[in-house]
Amino acid sequence: MRIDVLTLFPNMFSAYLGESILQRAQSAGLVSLQIHNIRGYAEGRHRVTDEPPYGGGGGMILKPEPIFKAIENIAAEDQQVKPKVILMAPQGRLLSHAVAVELAAEPWLLFLCGRYEGIDERVRQHIVDDEISIGDYVLTGGELAALVTIDALARHIPGVLGDEYAAERDSYSTGLLEGPHYTRPEIFRGWQVPEALRSGHAARIARWRREESLRLTWERRPDLLLTAELDEADKIFLMELAQETMVK
Amino acid sequence: MRIDVLTLFPNMFSAYLGESILQRAQSAGLVSLQIHNIRGYAEGRHRVTDEPPYGGGGGMILKPEPIFKAIENIAAEDQQVKPKVILMAPQGRLLSHAVAVELAAEPWLLFLCGRYEGIDERVRQHIVDDEISIGDYVLTGGELAALVTIDALARHIPGVLGDEYAAERDSYSTGLLEGPHYTRPEIFRGWQVPEALRSGHAARIARWRREESLRLTWERRPDLLLTAELDEADKIFLMELAQETMVK
Repeated sequence: MRIDVLTLFPNMFSAYLGESILQRAQSAGLVSLQIHNIRGYAEGRHRVTDEPPYGGGGGMILKPEPIFKAIENIAAEDQQVKPKVILMAPQGRLLSHAVAVELAAEPWLLFLCGRYEGIDERVRQHIVDDEISIGDYVLTGGELAALVTIDALARHIPGVLGDEYAAERDSYSTGLLEGPHYTRPEIFRGWQVPEALRSGHAARIARWRREESLRLTWERRPDLLLTAELDEADKIFLMELAQETMVK
Repeated sequence: MRIDVLTLFPNMFSAYLGESILQRAQSAGLVSLQIHNIRGYAEGRHRVTDEPPYGGGGGMILKPEPIFKAIENIAAEDQQVKPKVILMAPQGRLLSHAVAVELAAEPWLLFLCGRYEGIDERVRQHIVDDEISIGDYVLTGGELAALVTIDALARHIPGVLGDEYAAERDSYSTGLLEGPHYTRPEIFRGWQVPEALRSGHAARIARWRREESLRLTWERRPDLLLTAELDEADKIFLMELAQETMVK
């Protein structure tokens, strides 16, 4: 898979990516990642990338010319495949587990990071293929949003995660929140690891984990239960939880 | 405001924060930010911070001792105020514009970044005050989630944003998505800036922007219209939009 990023702040990417699973993915030849500075595609002695908005108001707007030039130059590097151009923007569709899985199956992604007040609308209308938002909050720029999206999708590229970190067991992969984890010491400040986890009975441990996962999801994100895959034992446990709540 | 971050990967923060509004906020004395390495609080020659989970299964779990020690050491630096300890976790409450505003009003925040498969449950139960998730997707660690939360809240600390980037005009601050922006050139590849924005009539420009903002929100996030503040003109415009949709 190839990933390109267009940004005014390339340095923001290097430190994070150098220590992340992306580093491993690149070393293993699974992902080819390139960060490009929009300024490098701007014309003139001052390489201007932004100007004030038409109609007045504060802030600066990213100009269309350097962005079109950058995307067209990068896309021309491969005649067989076309990159999917993704604008990181609060107006985009919300990133989710399903969107991350979908993006991980693309051969080539090009992330465009907005900055300042916004980006010229003609970029959005004529060269962007998809718009993604990572949540209902405002960020200073698209850089963190692109990093989050890349981190979330990278774990679904086959081979990127080692066996020990199975993506399928994660929160949201089962459709439920993950229950609690414990490690040594067995007793810390008087608080002991639950007996089930110390029992050594595989089936009992599995059931305890499933029930804690169901309980946490029930308490915090009951909306997720509507779409999770539940078996008969799960449903009985949830009915018991519901009865407990009503008795209280 | 004071912000501390506890992580196993302090380098992931420096590059981003050095070019972000956080840098400006620190230089102006508005925010005091410190990144701490959990490993520095681990005991023994190998400074072990993680071990396998009780009950088996893959992955490594962050141990409770170094985390308790780190938080207690940092908290002891100030006798008057206590830090609010926030764990970045998929099980947390969802970050939103409102949560960012709420956090920006706290005197002291301490972000704890999980890594690997998870964090010992006793940390979550006994020393964490709040748990936050930035969205319904899985990340490799809490570092990007903490950066996103810090970036989202920093813009609401008085004085951090310059006048030219008024936080109140942003998407979600009005409860609506922001409409399109344009900058020079007036005509790019045959695509012209809308007439209203070139008109020079302040009231007409304001109305055009409001209507484009309402239209985008109607098309992409109609859920936001339920809570947005709408005046009579907005409601008439939305009814017209609704009628257009029905005629189609």
